[in-house]
Amino acid sequence: MTAKAPKESRTIMTDLVLPSETNPLNNLFGGELLARMDRAAAISARRHSRRIVVTASVNHVAFNSAVPLGSVVTVEAKVSRAFRTSMEVFIDVWIEDRESGARTKANEAIYTFVAVDETGRPVAVPEVAPESDLEKERFAAALRRKQLSLLLAGKIKPQDATELKALFI
Amino acid sequence: MTAKAPKESRTIMTDLVLPSETNPLNNLFGGELLARMDRAAAISARRHSRRIVVTASVNHVAFNSAVPLGSVVTVEAKVSRAFRTSMEVFIDVWIEDRESGARTKANEAIYTFVAVDETGRPVAVPEVAPESDLEKERFAAALRRKQLSLLLAGKIKPQDATELKALFI
Amino acid sequence: MTAKAPKESRTIMTDLVLPSETNPLNNLFGGELLARMDRAAAISARRHSRRIVVTASVNHVAFNSAVPLGSVVTVEAKVSRAFRTSMEVFIDVWIEDRESGARTKANEAIYTFVAVDETGRPVAVPEVAPESDLEKERFAAALRRKQLSLLLAGKIKPQDATELKALFI
Amino acid sequence: MTAKAPKESRTIMTDLVLPSETNPLNNLFGGELLARMDRAAAISARRHSRRIVVTASVNHVAFNSAVPLGSVVTVEAKVSRAFRTSMEVFIDVWIEDRESGARTKANEAIYTFVAVDETGRPVAVPEVAPESDLEKERFAAALRRKQLSLLLAGKIKPQDATELKALFI
Amino acid sequence: MTAKAPKESRTIMTDLVLPSETNPLNNLFGGELLARMDRAAAISARRHSRRIVVTASVNHVAFNSAVPLGSVVTVEAKVSRAFRTSMEVFIDVWIEDRESGARTKANEAIYTFVAVDETGRPVAVPEVAPESDLEKERFAAALRRKQLSLLLAGKIKPQDATELKALFI
Amino acid sequence: MTAKAPKESRTIMTDLVLPSETNPLNNLFGGELLARMDRAAAISARRHSRRIVVTASVNHVAFNSAVPLGSVVTVEAKVSRAFRTSMEVFIDVWIEDRESGARTKANEAIYTFVAVDETGRPVAVPEVAPESDLEKERFAAALRRKQLSLLLAGKIKPQDATELKALFI
Repeated sequence: MTAKAPKESRTIMTDLVLPSETNPLNNLFGGELLARMDRAAAISARRHSRRIVVTASVNHVAFNSAVPLGSVVTVEAKVSRAFRTSMEVFIDVWIEDRESGARTKANEAIYTFVAVDETGRPVAVPEVAPESDLEKERFAAALRRKQLSLLLAGKIKPQDATELKALFI
Repeated sequence: MTAKAPKESRTIMTDLVLPSETNPLNNLFGGELLARMDRAAAISARRHSRRIVVTASVNHVAFNSAVPLGSVVTVEAKVSRAFRTSMEVFIDVWIEDRESGARTKANEAIYTFVAVDETGRPVAVPEVAPESDLEKERFAAALRRKQLSLLLAGKIKPQDATELKALFI
Repeated sequence: MTAKAPKESRTIMTDLVLPSETNPLNNLFGGELLARMDRAAAISARRHSRRIVVTASVNHVAFNSAVPLGSVVTVEAKVSRAFRTSMEVFIDVWIEDRESGARTKANEAIYTFVAVDETGRPVAVPEVAPESDLEKERFAAALRRKQLSLLLAGKIKPQDATELKALFI
Repeated sequence: MTAKAPKESRTIMTDLVLPSETNPLNNLFGGELLARMDRAAAISARRHSRRIVVTASVNHVAFNSAVPLGSVVTVEAKVSRAFRTSMEVFIDVWIEDRESGARTKANEAIYTFVAVDETGRPVAVPEVAPESDLEKERFAAALRRKQLSLLLAGKIKPQDATELKALFI
Repeated sequence: MTAKAPKESRTIMTDLVLPSETNPLNNLFGGELLARMDRAAAISARRHSRRIVVTASVNHVAFNSAVPLGSVVTVEAKVSRAFRTSMEVFIDVWIEDRESGARTKANEAIYTFVAVDETGRPVAVPEVAPESDLEKERFAAALRRKQLSLLLAGKIKPQDATELKALFI
Repeated sequence: MTAKAPKESRTIMTDLVLPSETNPLNNLFGGELLARMDRAAAISARRHSRRIVVTASVNHVAFNSAVPLGSVVTVEAKVSRAFRTSMEVFIDVWIEDRESGARTKANEAIYTFVAVDETGRPVAVPEVAPESDLEKERFAAALRRKQLSLLLAGKIKPQDATELKALFI
């Protein structure tokens, strides 16, 4: 399988925030944003792998900006790195001011998907060949994140998380 | 404000998995589960604080078990620890086999909420007084998780994350 | 089949009232509450019987309290009595005041479900062994309700509804 | 206020059964049908009273026929009798066979609504002047149902439910 | 196949406008109205043909009147003319004022459906025998619209659109 | 107001087809596609005008390709021409084959929006400066379409539709 550039899996999902998705402060529920990002990221992983994909994990996500009712929200997802049967997808979320047209970064998140066949068994996926500086940086950081993920899942020991350990000592 | 036990914020949300929430393998979308957990956790944080609450972050979540169409899913949320204006909520997810009645742990997740007033400004919340062994363990681990969260957000430096650092050296 | 206690089928469904479920006075539509209670009760009947279940009837339901937008609503369902292939499920609905934390009984309802096999044919279910005083009272009253139901369906004659008749003479 | 004929409040709601509304046997959930009937009946009561209306109660409803996925369901509602501030609405539900075009009665139900002003206080509504034989029969039976409703709510005593009592002795 | 009158396919879909269907001015989204009309028209075409039907096209639709949140909207669809395997469906939309009870025409639209068998292949449908003056007028105009549709799709040349051409010269 | 290029209003909405949006042949309902296109086009018109926008009309739309359940659908909208207070938006719809990754044009449509202020009154919008050949072609054709629209609405007479008339003689 030939490696693919992140732009080949780029997925853009622009939509409005509707009343049934907002909390008592009239902002988008965190959980609804997580669900939108999951759908966009799944499409991105499917474009990279051309396989059925299932969500394997979502990294730590912080909600720093409120997304008000009626906002135009753009969710943009790209596969940042592939491991054997899994793909890390980086998701950027913007909202835009109607009057000025200015775009603000509202969030970012990282999901991991596994490619599977029709019976649900993992299958191999192409590698990722990052192009831009940001894509290269995210590609490099993906290994660190994978170690953290394995560490949190108890699948490796702290002393084996070499990339992570280097951060602390 | 008097400290409250986790059981006072215990929130149970049992519901079916409907066709509009499932992926091509007929399993619940990861994103839909994230949205359900967010609603249950928000109610739990609201019960603890008696305030409007907004999602501040969600910790790393792994999806190890598929949740098939038609399943009965139980999402159980309890506030595990409170910091000044924020609350960590621990969420356990079970599915049950219809024929045997056996319950299987399908997932767990940790969300953080901030209590706010009607204008969206953070307000103080009661402390948590854990009772069971599991509650005490989760209470203790919450500090480590908070440091990790601050570290990932770039708000503290690795060398100041004392609890985390201790894991690696 | 061994009899089961009502607590074995106890089902709790806590959730928020969202804008798409409210009427022009910003209160939960009666019909939406009926639909939520049906889902909770169906899960309860399924837990008792470990079978596919279908709604057979809903008893008279009065809506005495409004349930405002944004409320936390708790629907709690327990099988109150089983007949050969059918189960009566008692449902209690509470709302809670965010600021005081006080719970108010907002409604109650009684649904009947039939257990069926994969082809839709009725199958036998375990009996109910009530434990608390309230459960015993509801168990006893279930027979009277069943007679009323048969009477309203024209399946028995007024003079044969012995339990009911006793109320009037 | 002049009395109105039931045909003036006649409301027809024809729609398809979609996948998100069906149970594991691929039939419409009982609760979804209850919610559709509530919306149709509310519109009917609103047409009769020209007021905001809220659901006060729903009578015993039996589900004798399954309504399969993809069915065309017609819900027809008419105000059958008005009391001072409340209206009884009779609802008939049909499904039709696509190939033969034959219509089958799938259900019927009786809801009661109260007309209110913008602050939620009950206001008087016009009387009903039934025209057809069926409308006259339903009008007459409405008093008996009202007594039963008051009796079940504990608002009158069995011996005062004269219409009902007559059934048993 | 015997011809059928438009009244045999008449379909009425009355429902409320809910908050999740409205735009920032609190009026029904144009797209939501298009979706409701499509469902009503599909049921009408199915009633005429007693076949599975799929949307083939929608004619030019103008949105002249806003439909506010909470409105009662009545969509009425009737097959206006059938061609070999296709049916033109005429849809009228009304809203009504709650206080006066007055009905206002809010919109009209024309959809075309094709009848298909279980494999998706077009099948013949009965002809339409218009009865009222309006039905006869719509029946006659349908041929003109069909030519315009073929012309816009590039399937006939302007000079062959005899009905249309007559309008301009 | 400076003229804007169509790319400045380009809006991409990629999403999955879910079970609740499909007809009995398991393809996306025509009406659901119309609703999705309306949301994407509204965002595009809002980006061009930086105003609240409301749907004014939708041109003739043909549904030539079925969009199966589970498809990834990309709706792309760009403002093709602006008149004083209105904007014509051109929408292209693609689906992609999961295994080959090939994109197929599934549909196209043309909607018109009006920019309004908070009270719903029309306000002026910037002009469009087309760049690519396709954009220039669509810009030119927009005048013809506007005349057809005015003609169909009875607002101009056939002999005044100069652009259209030229097609026939």
